[in-house]
Amino acid sequence: MRTVVPFAVSEPKTRLSSVLSPDERREFARAMLDDVLAALRALDREPEVLATERVDVDAPVTVDDRPLDPAINEVLETTDEAVAVVMADLALATPDALDQLFSPDADVVLAPGRGGGTNAFVARHPDFRVDYHDASIRDHRRIAAELTDDVVEVDSFRLATDVDDPSDLAEVLLHGEGEAADWLREAGFELSVDDGRVGVSR
Amino acid sequence: MRTVVPFAVSEPKTRLSSVLSPDERREFARAMLDDVLAALRALDREPEVLATERVDVDAPVTVDDRPLDPAINEVLETTDEAVAVVMADLALATPDALDQLFSPDADVVLAPGRGGGTNAFVARHPDFRVDYHDASIRDHRRIAAELTDDVVEVDSFRLATDVDDPSDLAEVLLHGEGEAADWLREAGFELSVDDGRVGVSR
Repeated sequence: MRTVVPFAVSEPKTRLSSVLSPDERREFARAMLDDVLAALRALDREPEVLATERVDVDAPVTVDDRPLDPAINEVLETTDEAVAVVMADLALATPDALDQLFSPDADVVLAPGRGGGTNAFVARHPDFRVDYHDASIRDHRRIAAELTDDVVEVDSFRLATDVDDPSDLAEVLLHGEGEAADWLREAGFELSVDDGRVGVSR
Repeated sequence: MRTVVPFAVSEPKTRLSSVLSPDERREFARAMLDDVLAALRALDREPEVLATERVDVDAPVTVDDRPLDPAINEVLETTDEAVAVVMADLALATPDALDQLFSPDADVVLAPGRGGGTNAFVARHPDFRVDYHDASIRDHRRIAAELTDDVVEVDSFRLATDVDDPSDLAEVLLHGEGEAADWLREAGFELSVDDGRVGVSR
């Protein structure tokens, strides 16, 4: 099985602009990527990075500067074996959480993200393709259901938590166990509570 | 094991006031409660409702009008067997998701909620007590760790998703399988996408 981690090199995590500078966003995105790669390697997977431009990372890198859909669909179209795709911003991903993605021997395994996204999948059916716009989990359910009845959804909070907004940083501080959580703490972030809602302050 | 579901009868889900009338909030909260009770019964549990006032529900009801902490701690203090507490607003809870709470034979099993909450737990240690203020999962980790090394955390998106804010309604429409999802659809809610973010419109 190929295990592919897409990674946007130049302008990552724009929704964090209110709390992180461009350089900081690049560093933090890189720390999350390194956490995801480490968790995959702990499962004896050999992750590859599918990057929008050249990047120095301890994994094989394929550069494809197109948007996510054509870049990933190219991988799906040109690969004869099964393909796993895991987003690079899953800062809570652990080997145990990711194992839930790889364990089911289903044609398609989907890991939904909060807000209707699709944070990871495994495709063993050769005709599965992606469509990441809007509430992509609905599209991926439909695409998979048109191909096969053998579809499994993973129920994991860790895999459902992609880090896009400042509120997601609280989840990293609460549950993260890797470089991304360390990076945030070293950058001075800590949990704060305002009117019963948990967020971060710096 | 006693399985207790706390339920606020009179003014539930105030953070949904911008999208639901008081009567609608009561109906919707009740639909979520019924879903949680049904999922627990499907696991052969016999859930009890710990309500802030009398309520007509198909389960044994104990009335305690105090805040959540003293009401639940009273249950923990006065019960000799193990106690499970499952929040009533887990509209995505399924038997499979809840089974992850009951399966580990640990002294304390914690199911974190998004935003630092504790959406469910099982306490087999007689001295475990709750403190639901602010980021309660941190407090519950600390309280449990002071009692025992035998603590397990459940990794479930379904159990992590309590329904507090309008944005949570999108999760119910995307993943709900019970009365609460039906209620929302019948009330005219549907998914909407604005600037790449998934929400609901009516």
